[in-house]
Amino acid sequence: MEEVFQNETVKEILTKYRRIWAIGHAQSVLGWDMEVNMPKEGILERSVARGELSVLSQEFLLKPEFVELVEKAKDLELNEYERGVVRVLDREIRISKSFPPEFLREMSEVTSQATKAWEEAKKSDDFSKFEPWLDRIIDLAKRAADYLGYEDEPYDALLDMFEEGTTTKDVERMFEGLEKELKPLLDRILEEGKVPQSHPLEKERYEKDQMERVNLWILEKFGFPLGVRSRLDVSAHPFTTEFGIRDVRITTRYEGYDFRRTILSTVHEFGHALYELQQDERFAFSPIAGGVSLGIHESQSRFWENIVGRSREFAELIHPVLRENLPFMANYTPEDVYSYFNVVRPDFIRTESDVVTYNFHILLRFRLERMMLNEGVKAKDLPELWNDEMERLLGIRPKSYVDGILQDIHWAHGTIGYFPTYSIGTLLSAQFYYHMKKDLNVEEHIASADFEPIKAWLRERIHRYGSIYPPKELLKKAIGEELNPDYFVRWVKERYL
Amino acid sequence: MEEVFQNETVKEILTKYRRIWAIGHAQSVLGWDMEVNMPKEGILERSVARGELSVLSQEFLLKPEFVELVEKAKDLELNEYERGVVRVLDREIRISKSFPPEFLREMSEVTSQATKAWEEAKKSDDFSKFEPWLDRIIDLAKRAADYLGYEDEPYDALLDMFEEGTTTKDVERMFEGLEKELKPLLDRILEEGKVPQSHPLEKERYEKDQMERVNLWILEKFGFPLGVRSRLDVSAHPFTTEFGIRDVRITTRYEGYDFRRTILSTVHEFGHALYELQQDERFAFSPIAGGVSLGIHESQSRFWENIVGRSREFAELIHPVLRENLPFMANYTPEDVYSYFNVVRPDFIRTESDVVTYNFHILLRFRLERMMLNEGVKAKDLPELWNDEMERLLGIRPKSYVDGILQDIHWAHGTIGYFPTYSIGTLLSAQFYYHMKKDLNVEEHIASADFEPIKAWLRERIHRYGSIYPPKELLKKAIGEELNPDYFVRWVKERYL
Repeated sequence: MEEVFQNETVKEILTKYRRIWAIGHAQSVLGWDMEVNMPKEGILERSVARGELSVLSQEFLLKPEFVELVEKAKDLELNEYERGVVRVLDREIRISKSFPPEFLREMSEVTSQATKAWEEAKKSDDFSKFEPWLDRIIDLAKRAADYLGYEDEPYDALLDMFEEGTTTKDVERMFEGLEKELKPLLDRILEEGKVPQSHPLEKERYEKDQMERVNLWILEKFGFPLGVRSRLDVSAHPFTTEFGIRDVRITTRYEGYDFRRTILSTVHEFGHALYELQQDERFAFSPIAGGVSLGIHESQSRFWENIVGRSREFAELIHPVLRENLPFMANYTPEDVYSYFNVVRPDFIRTESDVVTYNFHILLRFRLERMMLNEGVKAKDLPELWNDEMERLLGIRPKSYVDGILQDIHWAHGTIGYFPTYSIGTLLSAQFYYHMKKDLNVEEHIASADFEPIKAWLRERIHRYGSIYPPKELLKKAIGEELNPDYFVRWVKERYL
Repeated sequence: MEEVFQNETVKEILTKYRRIWAIGHAQSVLGWDMEVNMPKEGILERSVARGELSVLSQEFLLKPEFVELVEKAKDLELNEYERGVVRVLDREIRISKSFPPEFLREMSEVTSQATKAWEEAKKSDDFSKFEPWLDRIIDLAKRAADYLGYEDEPYDALLDMFEEGTTTKDVERMFEGLEKELKPLLDRILEEGKVPQSHPLEKERYEKDQMERVNLWILEKFGFPLGVRSRLDVSAHPFTTEFGIRDVRITTRYEGYDFRRTILSTVHEFGHALYELQQDERFAFSPIAGGVSLGIHESQSRFWENIVGRSREFAELIHPVLRENLPFMANYTPEDVYSYFNVVRPDFIRTESDVVTYNFHILLRFRLERMMLNEGVKAKDLPELWNDEMERLLGIRPKSYVDGILQDIHWAHGTIGYFPTYSIGTLLSAQFYYHMKKDLNVEEHIASADFEPIKAWLRERIHRYGSIYPPKELLKKAIGEELNPDYFVRWVKERYL
């Protein structure tokens, strides 16, 4: 295969970049180990090590000779791969440079104390313990937006950090379109009562080993290269991490009941992992090796979770292995599994919510975040705003803070502008599905556990581009259009009505 | 507790050192993960990352302003902790500076090719495949010795890298004393035939889970802080690693038969881990936090393996948990376990050898290494020399290269001068034991699973000093004398005659 990086300046950039890459590799391993293996008290030394490495990586990124090389490369005639390298690095340098060290220190101190306060507040269902910290975080977010700069509104600056090139207006438009269609749809689903709101399988208990065998069986059918280029482990919150193209690891969890959680989270993380595993190997060690944005990444995980994992064909495919491992499955048909995987029920908790109601949880958070940033809304007003919006959207009103504003850790971590990427991904997954259907009989492939054509389609259209193009350009390349919520609405209609 | 580092220059050194420490922390995690978790193909990117980080760490260590600070500190009036910091760093800088980059590159290339050649040679029992590489490695070792410099003979330079301050003469004297006493002892043991040369328990098979439960039970009795500051995992070759004082991990292996191997290797690694876990916490992030040399480290692992793990009291202590987990144990008494753990049988393979014959394997390697370095012996002469010496020492003559010169990976890795530390540790473990006996009834404590006093003794005498003192000085501090092989001989006599 042809070398993708030919230009001498870009080659020089990549040689210098290699130590930044190596530090990133190490950081990822340290992070994975923290979640999966680390003994409790290891946290002290681990945190110090990670802090030092992150300063170090920053230093190398902002070294004048490195920055100058990237600047110089911007004016050169480059191929698309090289332009990708320069775009990604230029963006990283710009973001890195934006924040003064004092600000980063303040951010890190405030968020670590805010996280403790949030934990306390959640434990005692007492919002007042978190409230002053949330105000400080809102203030920090505003200042971050100012440092980063924006054209229309502060929220744009934060959003762009997670979803390059996407504006608040884009997201507002997306949610408007979605809400208008999805709200009546949800009401109709709930009224008609054909889709179950709960299922006896939710209560059935299992042993970890049983479901581990099922998950491994599924991953094998997917062709996940366990032991060769990947692993499946256990962590409190399932996640995917990559240490390069050749070592991509996912985790799942085993609660001991409601087995669809462990299956669907394994399938979800597989989707993330596949995106990383199917990168062009020539990009290795470069900044364009890897998924381009959180939204695109989430579209891949949601594709596998929702389109594949919640399909009737998938329920039929896994029914035998479920029966083999779970004695209670003798009483349930494949159709039971399918309806269990597709329960629709308004719930207070985002992470417990189903495919249809999920987006309303995100919409709510997006609107509140935007109000914090742009309209001067303070922490004290948020619980009421949350509850009102929840009632309006899902018809249920939280009776505790834990069921409302205190449920997510994101704000305590200082992460504002991140939530919309969950919906972007969810909507895109349906959009990719309808495009894929033009080329493939998706359901037939799922039914026969023939996942190669599906994987090849995703590789050709999306994965192989790594981070060459920013998300919007990638979409044009992959499917010739922009993000459009109609596909998701169509998918919900076809599945639930 | 009082701060141990008071001097401003030393504090400045330690602040700068922190990123070197962080890179070391990351390297250790990357190394551990490689042995325990890494999917096969992850090796490519992992090797690149480790290579980059090792260059980086070297760069920081040799930065002129860092070296100057250390130089400056050598002339200051410092407390013993601070002097330790300066001694360790000065030594690291000196060793690092000794080798020109071209030499390090050559070393790394030759050893990685030599390792492949050694694997091939071992697989086909064909020494000729490894011979030319071994000659290159001998040549590299000589040049390394020249770069490092030495007073008496080249071997001194290499030995010092692993056992600071120990000379070839020291080791030769140790082995002379040992050989004179131990050889007739071994002959007598074998002639008398009271000590078994094999045992039916060697053949009994087990399941991994069974022995894992036993190992965890033992570690719990030892007070190993599993999940808090430590872990037990599985790897092809058992080892201990530390990511600081608060995260020290050991591994073991489960062959499925001959269960003393997994127990004794777990107990052995526990000894290494305890040395790291019992460091003075005030040393954290500094270069004196951690065991001082390979020999002292091995004395700790051997203490737990030989003195504790092979004692009659230990066999009695673990007999019930063995019975609980291994059905075949119904046919064996604690005395059976004891004699099984203390079989003495000349064997070709070092790693299979018993406590008594083990040191002859090391002696043989030490003598050959010394001949390579000082007497111009070439690779082609080594198999014959090996076999002759083996026959002289243990009365058995290898019929294949695999049973002789091709058995160890060390030389292929370019590691020459390392083997003697195994014997240094073994002899010291007995020496520490007799000193401990003056203060404690060691056997009674083992019998009652009361390991705290033993651990406290090791902590007070050895562990808490970290790397403040070089090994010989530490010995003076700990037991008021030098390494003396007589203790080990006495221990063998008491145990086997």
